Amino acid sequence: MSQFNIAVIPGDGIGTEVIPEGIKALEAAAAKHGVELNFTHFDWSCETYHRTGRMMPEDGLDQLKQFDSIFLGAVGFPGVPDHISLWGLLLPIRRAFNQYVNLRPVRLFEGLQSPLANKQAGDIDFYVVRENVEGEYSNIGGIQYEGTDDEVVSQQSIFTRKGTDRILKYAFDLAQSRDKKHLSSATKSNGLFHSMPYWDSRVEAMAERYPDVKVDQFHIDIFTANLVRMPEFYDVIVGSNLFGDILSDLGPACTGTIAIAPSANINPEKEFPSMFEPVHGSAPDIAGQNIANPIGTVWAAAMMMQHLGCDDMHDTIMGAIETVIRDQLALTRDMGGNASTQELGQAIADII
Amino acid sequence: MSQFNIAVIPGDGIGTEVIPEGIKALEAAAAKHGVELNFTHFDWSCETYHRTGRMMPEDGLDQLKQFDSIFLGAVGFPGVPDHISLWGLLLPIRRAFNQYVNLRPVRLFEGLQSPLANKQAGDIDFYVVRENVEGEYSNIGGIQYEGTDDEVVSQQSIFTRKGTDRILKYAFDLAQSRDKKHLSSATKSNGLFHSMPYWDSRVEAMAERYPDVKVDQFHIDIFTANLVRMPEFYDVIVGSNLFGDILSDLGPACTGTIAIAPSANINPEKEFPSMFEPVHGSAPDIAGQNIANPIGTVWAAAMMMQHLGCDDMHDTIMGAIETVIRDQLALTRDMGGNASTQELGQAIADII
Ligand SMILES: CC(C)[C@H](C(=O)O)[C@@H](O)C(=O)O
Ligand SMILES: CC(C)[C@H](C(=O)O)[C@@H](O)C(=O)O
Repeated sequence: MSQFNIAVIPGDGIGTEVIPEGIKALEAAAAKHGVELNFTHFDWSCETYHRTGRMMPEDGLDQLKQFDSIFLGAVGFPGVPDHISLWGLLLPIRRAFNQYVNLRPVRLFEGLQSPLANKQAGDIDFYVVRENVEGEYSNIGGIQYEGTDDEVVSQQSIFTRKGTDRILKYAFDLAQSRDKKHLSSATKSNGLFHSMPYWDSRVEAMAERYPDVKVDQFHIDIFTANLVRMPEFYDVIVGSNLFGDILSDLGPACTGTIAIAPSANINPEKEFPSMFEPVHGSAPDIAGQNIANPIGTVWAAAMMMQHLGCDDMHDTIMGAIETVIRDQLALTRDMGGNASTQELGQAIADII
Repeated sequence: MSQFNIAVIPGDGIGTEVIPEGIKALEAAAAKHGVELNFTHFDWSCETYHRTGRMMPEDGLDQLKQFDSIFLGAVGFPGVPDHISLWGLLLPIRRAFNQYVNLRPVRLFEGLQSPLANKQAGDIDFYVVRENVEGEYSNIGGIQYEGTDDEVVSQQSIFTRKGTDRILKYAFDLAQSRDKKHLSSATKSNGLFHSMPYWDSRVEAMAERYPDVKVDQFHIDIFTANLVRMPEFYDVIVGSNLFGDILSDLGPACTGTIAIAPSANINPEKEFPSMFEPVHGSAPDIAGQNIANPIGTVWAAAMMMQHLGCDDMHDTIMGAIETVIRDQLALTRDMGGNASTQELGQAIADII
């Protein structure tokens, strides 16, 4: 019997509401497929910050290191500045555990209404492969002449060949494994003078090793426009930390609700635990109302089991998500229904 | 009789096809309102680059300085890397002439079909106010260990208090002048550790001086999602150079075609000429086919005349654009018709 130890960090806001539904689905699928899952909860959050001055304990990363996987809700809440909360919890985990791939599937499900006119299930079906540990997300920089009219703030992005090539390789491999074999790279080499021309040159170099993959590139501005005009064009999208972040929120918005989108922070070499979370944030505006959509979290749970080698659990969970949406069994408000977070979570677990 | 000297730079690709239509509209409106316009053409482009090794002559900026205004088509063409062409022509003009405001209206016209379901004319009607001379668009940075596996590329963004406050002031003033008095700021303070928390703090400081303006802010990822989900929510959007660039391509895409969107690069103090151009680029894929939509350029021409104090010319040109679209008189392919660039341009001039 396979056995996995999972670190669970519900975090803030609706993170604490959707994570239990993810666990419900995992437990149902584990029972069905004879897998043993042990969950250890960590209450690290903005609330912890208020109490202790830290988002997680000093040895937090050490504590997490021993787990097979990390299951995270959402981080950030009014009262703690976003750059403090995120650089105190989510971002250090991605970096310390070398989770350099952020894999985000985007799919229009049967039963959901796209905000785009005339789009059917199947029309939107692509992956965003986002670089997850370097690039624009950086705490290198600072401020000079602080507090005066002469204030100057510098913010650096760092792109390494190692960091760029490995995410490109992952994306090209993924594209090669798919029917369309089509990779689209996000750039902005006309405005960002150093980083993006470099990115483009590495795409070009990598493309030579994948002659069967059709490659194109779009500046991020027109890329966002294209996602709205012709989402069916895309198959695998690769982008830097920032551009991948943007496209993987916009993409799901085109599928009806960003709340169903999952995010897998993967260390492909499995030297460290990977981390699975919904794309959505802590959503303070709807927190505490039991109306948050848990599907992003449940889908993230499915991706986690796939990463751990349990494809059957993945498939079972995905099947349940598809059924509950297609048959409109219990949809939350964002999907046009009026089910609660728990009712939707329970419906998924029941199907499993 | 007012008289203005206009520098015209058609540039590359469809830039050379749409600019003549913009001039047609300007000449018709000038004749009607008794204004004298003198156009001086500059053939600066990627073609010039191939011939001379420069996008514009060494004294190019000096030549432009004496004009009342600059009317630009599009810059960039395959064969010259984008960062070379743009940093050799468009971006130096924005900077040298302190055109720190990039004003981009976004509007769904009667007669155009939004790619968003169930949106009517009037549902989308906002301005993007984009910082236009500093921020992420920067040639500060470089590469170390070039050509080896250890390559590291650094790319800096620079935000100054002066540069940040003046664009925010412009945006707040604009918001205050409108019915909704609603300003939305684009940020990403959870990922970009220095620049965006700084941006947010300046928004907060400026907001205190505009108690009647309703202010909110969104991280750029969810901002793009929101534009698709609820474009009617927005009134005035303010963003950094990069974020403003993205939102002002995505916004027009939601109005049916980005080809109608204009871009005013404004030096509000009028120390230097301002520059007016369509948002779209040189579009090499459709260049030379006489199918490019000239409306973005004609609208930019209208904004130019408004900036020069000729509100009546602005209104006349805008009225003609509205009529030609509403009555479907001569629409190009991107708007669902089959008129040529020239037929559409002529239809607008005829109405004027
Ligand atoms: C061509 C490019 C440098 C330019 C920009 O990003 O500013 C364009 O996209 C625009 O929006 O005017
Ligand atoms: C919360 C934030 C730092 C995070 C990111 O930008 O990476 C989130 O938007 C995401 O996409 O996972």
